[in-house]
Amino acid sequence: MKQQIKIVDIEVHDVRFPTSRNFIGSDAMNTDPDYSAAYVILKTDHPNNLEGHGLTFTIGRGNEICAKAIEALSPLLLNKTLSSFTEDMGAFWTMITGDSQLRWLGPEKGVIHLATGAVVNAVWDLYAKVEEKPLWKLLADMTPEQLVSCVDFKYITDVITPEEAIAMLKEKESTKQKRITYLEKNGYPAYNTSVGWLGYSDKKLRELCREAKAAGWKYVKMKVGSNLGEDIRRASIIKDEIGEDLKLMMDANQKWDVDEAIENMKILSQFNPWWIEEPTSPDDILGHAKIAKAVAPIHVATGEHCQNRIIFKQLMQADAMGICQIDSCRVGGVNEILAILLMAAKFAIPVCPHAGGVGLCEYVQHLSMIDYISISGRIENRVIEYVDHLHEHFVDPVVIKNGNYLLPAAPGYSVTMKKESLKEYSFPSGAIWKSELENIIKTPIIN
Amino acid sequence: MKQQIKIVDIEVHDVRFPTSRNFIGSDAMNTDPDYSAAYVILKTDHPNNLEGHGLTFTIGRGNEICAKAIEALSPLLLNKTLSSFTEDMGAFWTMITGDSQLRWLGPEKGVIHLATGAVVNAVWDLYAKVEEKPLWKLLADMTPEQLVSCVDFKYITDVITPEEAIAMLKEKESTKQKRITYLEKNGYPAYNTSVGWLGYSDKKLRELCREAKAAGWKYVKMKVGSNLGEDIRRASIIKDEIGEDLKLMMDANQKWDVDEAIENMKILSQFNPWWIEEPTSPDDILGHAKIAKAVAPIHVATGEHCQNRIIFKQLMQADAMGICQIDSCRVGGVNEILAILLMAAKFAIPVCPHAGGVGLCEYVQHLSMIDYISISGRIENRVIEYVDHLHEHFVDPVVIKNGNYLLPAAPGYSVTMKKESLKEYSFPSGAIWKSELENIIKTPIIN
Repeated sequence: MKQQIKIVDIEVHDVRFPTSRNFIGSDAMNTDPDYSAAYVILKTDHPNNLEGHGLTFTIGRGNEICAKAIEALSPLLLNKTLSSFTEDMGAFWTMITGDSQLRWLGPEKGVIHLATGAVVNAVWDLYAKVEEKPLWKLLADMTPEQLVSCVDFKYITDVITPEEAIAMLKEKESTKQKRITYLEKNGYPAYNTSVGWLGYSDKKLRELCREAKAAGWKYVKMKVGSNLGEDIRRASIIKDEIGEDLKLMMDANQKWDVDEAIENMKILSQFNPWWIEEPTSPDDILGHAKIAKAVAPIHVATGEHCQNRIIFKQLMQADAMGICQIDSCRVGGVNEILAILLMAAKFAIPVCPHAGGVGLCEYVQHLSMIDYISISGRIENRVIEYVDHLHEHFVDPVVIKNGNYLLPAAPGYSVTMKKESLKEYSFPSGAIWKSELENIIKTPIIN
Repeated sequence: MKQQIKIVDIEVHDVRFPTSRNFIGSDAMNTDPDYSAAYVILKTDHPNNLEGHGLTFTIGRGNEICAKAIEALSPLLLNKTLSSFTEDMGAFWTMITGDSQLRWLGPEKGVIHLATGAVVNAVWDLYAKVEEKPLWKLLADMTPEQLVSCVDFKYITDVITPEEAIAMLKEKESTKQKRITYLEKNGYPAYNTSVGWLGYSDKKLRELCREAKAAGWKYVKMKVGSNLGEDIRRASIIKDEIGEDLKLMMDANQKWDVDEAIENMKILSQFNPWWIEEPTSPDDILGHAKIAKAVAPIHVATGEHCQNRIIFKQLMQADAMGICQIDSCRVGGVNEILAILLMAAKFAIPVCPHAGGVGLCEYVQHLSMIDYISISGRIENRVIEYVDHLHEHFVDPVVIKNGNYLLPAAPGYSVTMKKESLKEYSFPSGAIWKSELENIIKTPIIN
């Protein structure tokens, strides 16, 4: 049996890209991100040396803490066979998240859960590689019972039970192939988030809008939340360029209090945004519910900083979330994503994954594909975020055509990083950082 | 000026106590805790070598991750003067929690926030030592404006504003000294949590109940949630021993789903518990609200695993929390605790802090004292958890008399650990662990 291979060694890497040098990714909350990955490689005794690769995304300092947490989880995987996990992926998830001492550090949130994301996704990557399928296909080939058995229903049975989930999936089963054919032909719609970072000049903003339009993009997103006057000014520039041809989204990156979000959106509604993203703290379910009610028909989008299925459950129960933005790392990996996709399908809430950073586009394409193929069965009003950074570091990078993500074809979960990138961007020993750190030493960082 | 001292060095220790050897602290969720502290010492250039000590509590594995996170926060403190923090403690808090790259790891939750608790509490400890006051007294001597200026109102202005908080404190100001005198005479009521751990035999359970009664305790708490039949059996034994003389509390340690909690509490209500603690996931605000409504007049108690002021805000808004159980480390330290105490006072919800573990009793006594003296002004229906473990490792341990915590008198925040304990229980190099690890190596941990 193919899955009888054993995990014989685990490598952990701290990889960082100095993106803050060019204001890439700057927003009201995150002013100087260095896109980073706490990266894990599961080495096996497979005759072809197959490896499972997983990463969790951070924005720089603290990436070493996630790496440390991956090390703490490693004894749960080392010297185990892949089949001991794949024979019951639900049990695998509760084993990884259920170590009582490590659970205390969350539970199921923050650093330990970010690290869980790297580890769980690496196991899924290995599983898919062994089965010689891209991840979406591995999942699409599962029966409803198999797919549902990957999910931990603990704490969510008040909104969905395994039986209900299986029934939902069975309704979609006979038409799966039709949707795969659709994706093979058309891909999955993407939106381009790169036009409206705060650090960009007006000139660059206009240029990027024009480029996006020329390249066939249908959506653009802008950052808001640093200063209302400035938000209005920049939104005017963008609308001046894109008109009503492209849909505009706004992203406040958690900068507002609840009542402040409502007041500001009353004014920004003049630009007719499709959604307002992260208007306030990702922990504030009741706050999001109040905002959603006040700003309708503008949708409230959130999720990239939401910690687990329990928070997503409540955002859905409370009508607080109009757009569900899953993150492939923060919630601990594929199993938890499936729980969230099932709930979103039940509540008929469109899933538009969070991406960008490093490796997130590579990850989330699989998640939207499987959502369409097997779970929600819907694609309208759904888009995957796309940012054109750092894809060159991956062996199997995303492919975008006419503003759509094409179906990934290579086996695995698409986040295998090139060996030379792992080495060059390794922190602090890689070539890129050696020169960077020499500069920092000349100007003291502590003041 | 006394606070012109500078932080010249920062020491981080990984300290662990092998409490799992005797089933101490065992409950349905945490079966084998080794009470541990990620411990920080702020060294200064003070002529008397004054140091700020802080710890964050964990239950074993993963303590090294918190230690790593404390190291990541250390550059924010190193070579700074104490006065640069104390001149605006609110700004100090937003500086510590606002590093954009580290914030990504939470935000304000999990490992990075546990580490924040150690660091923030160490600064408060140093501040109190420099002022030669116990922490409660340092806070009690502040004006309402000063106390409120320590609080971050971000994301909670929809339930309380600084102006409102100041007005609340002003009402209590003229009677503060009366309450201090009361505490000097009577202390603050405690409850004893040690009788009902799951690992104990029936015989030990009966013995502990009798001892608790004989020692003058008025409350006992039992663990529930592993098995309903077993819970009923053990509750019967405890009630048989304590009758109606002592109040009984139950603690489910997050073992139940929402509807399961409601069903089980219908049956366990026959034992007339004062509260049910952590009936379900600490993240489930709407779930707690549903349970609270269903089990009234039994109170729902939660908080020890709640991550920050935003979760507490919602639990209060939703009538989901009948008893507010703050934890001195998990929410990031004193400043955040003040935010929560202010909201609890506004909603008239009794605060009964989570303690036990290592150092938590030493910490929380100050918090309940200041709540009574300056914030809620109330003491009825309020008790501080007490567990009689590991106090011998502290220089200034709690003192309990007739079931009450006595007012701490020594300067600081009471968690300065003895130098020899820091050394002996250091993980993995301390004497205690060297022998423990030798045993483990004989029986492999990975299976």
